[in-house]
Amino acid sequence: MAKLVIVGTVAFDAIETPFGKTDKILGGAATYISLAASHFEVDAAAVSVVGGDFPKSYLDLLEDKNINIEGVEIVKEGKTFFWSGKYHNDMNSRDTLATELNTLADFNPIVPNNYKNAEIVMLGNLHPSVQSSVLDQMTTQPKLVILDTMNFWMDCALDDLLKVIKRIDVITINDEEARQLTGEYSLVVAARKIHDMGPKYVVIKKGEHGALLFHKEHVFYAPALPLEEVFDPTGAGDTFAGGFAGYLAKTGDISFENMKNAVVYGSALASFSVEKFGTERMENLSSSEIHKRLLQFKQLTQFDIDLI
Amino acid sequence: MAKLVIVGTVAFDAIETPFGKTDKILGGAATYISLAASHFEVDAAAVSVVGGDFPKSYLDLLEDKNINIEGVEIVKEGKTFFWSGKYHNDMNSRDTLATELNTLADFNPIVPNNYKNAEIVMLGNLHPSVQSSVLDQMTTQPKLVILDTMNFWMDCALDDLLKVIKRIDVITINDEEARQLTGEYSLVVAARKIHDMGPKYVVIKKGEHGALLFHKEHVFYAPALPLEEVFDPTGAGDTFAGGFAGYLAKTGDISFENMKNAVVYGSALASFSVEKFGTERMENLSSSEIHKRLLQFKQLTQFDIDLI
Repeated sequence: MAKLVIVGTVAFDAIETPFGKTDKILGGAATYISLAASHFEVDAAAVSVVGGDFPKSYLDLLEDKNINIEGVEIVKEGKTFFWSGKYHNDMNSRDTLATELNTLADFNPIVPNNYKNAEIVMLGNLHPSVQSSVLDQMTTQPKLVILDTMNFWMDCALDDLLKVIKRIDVITINDEEARQLTGEYSLVVAARKIHDMGPKYVVIKKGEHGALLFHKEHVFYAPALPLEEVFDPTGAGDTFAGGFAGYLAKTGDISFENMKNAVVYGSALASFSVEKFGTERMENLSSSEIHKRLLQFKQLTQFDIDLI
Repeated sequence: MAKLVIVGTVAFDAIETPFGKTDKILGGAATYISLAASHFEVDAAAVSVVGGDFPKSYLDLLEDKNINIEGVEIVKEGKTFFWSGKYHNDMNSRDTLATELNTLADFNPIVPNNYKNAEIVMLGNLHPSVQSSVLDQMTTQPKLVILDTMNFWMDCALDDLLKVIKRIDVITINDEEARQLTGEYSLVVAARKIHDMGPKYVVIKKGEHGALLFHKEHVFYAPALPLEEVFDPTGAGDTFAGGFAGYLAKTGDISFENMKNAVVYGSALASFSVEKFGTERMENLSSSEIHKRLLQFKQLTQFDIDLI
């Protein structure tokens, strides 16, 4: 088993969907990633920052899931990062209603000493120079660095983003962002251009249409499970990334063949995440439920063709 | 091997894409379906209508591919159905520049006597009452009737469409049309509602995102092959349908498991079709190229997961 460092936001979210509305609930990229990775019983540490207003019960929840939280700084006089959004009827688009950076504005991540030699580093969506500063702290070169990012940083901090992208092995990015980053409509061509920027592996997330994994001339396609109802898409991409990173940390095998499995695990966990508001489904998910869903993914995709 | 009846348009198309522009070239649903099905060396007959302006060389082309064309009526004094369209830069949307029904306006399909006992009937996109009239001519109940349709008939001939849908086994329809037909956004719920209208099998085509096959509580997802370049999407859906029907006719096995393979074959042929303008790629496609692409589909989708 490999040690896993998870960097990203731990936050309050307030979410509105056609199905309902929440007050401030637990959210943030590092939270979703950690909860997803926790299902693999890996040795993982979350690195983040919260304010004095952040309930101890939320931190206890992460600890109960065996996530090391030494690296989650508590700024007593500060307030926790807050995001609020409202989903449209199709659930594929949303409006951001509020973004209050609060303590995140001065976030200076500190990797706990015991994790500076972690084999796998998962850099959740954050300012790219903050992501870089985590890599600077590692005392041994990680076997695998995974980075998630978004269009916001392409608009506001492209140079820093390109710098950190050079240093990583796997990027996870959605289809529109891959197109924006490369100026290419074809995802095959976009993935090739991103390869040239540094990452040997490119994961393009297409929401309800699944995810593509590119490596050199190889490509793997994990569809999303067709769902009757998407209740709340918040955190689905982070849950995917957490499942992906968690599975690789658990198996310690970073071959392309095993990365296919990691993409399927990530997709399976994401398919649960959207069934309830916020992190609820990830908090209460049994391994037998996960196994059952992986069998559904097999039935969904596997065929045994005769060449005629 | 099962006999296959293919009904649909045989037409002139004029196509404009970001890559270029054609004059009037060979097109039409029955043409694409027939050319795709011809790769399975099945006993197939095309039923359609053309005008006196239709080149004999195009009919010869179909005959050379062993498609029976007795049922392609030639109205000497009439003109052939003509469609012209222009694709936008993303290739996912297009404007129709011209639709001249010509002889299609009075199309009264006649199934050749020798094919009135065909086991498989593929009803290409046409007025639903024309599709019904083909079923009326069958002397034995086909083992499988496949129907393709489009939003136009939902707008203009919904009652007739619902009548013919009751009589068929498999419907192929795109995602937006499935949503329009049922008023449901979730494709899982939409497929269930379409099941209730008659078809035991529902194939939802999602273009570059692949195709879903629904049957009772089962679902199978064949992704589209990610392509560097889509040159001309015209006829991709019909090519998919032709591959699907052709494979089922060749194998004579209409189980759900075998239908998964049919969906993969359809997707593989469609991935070729878009590589060149019009029917060109379908006309010149070797079985070794098809086999190679099917292996690509296996690599694209197959994984061997350990449940951990």
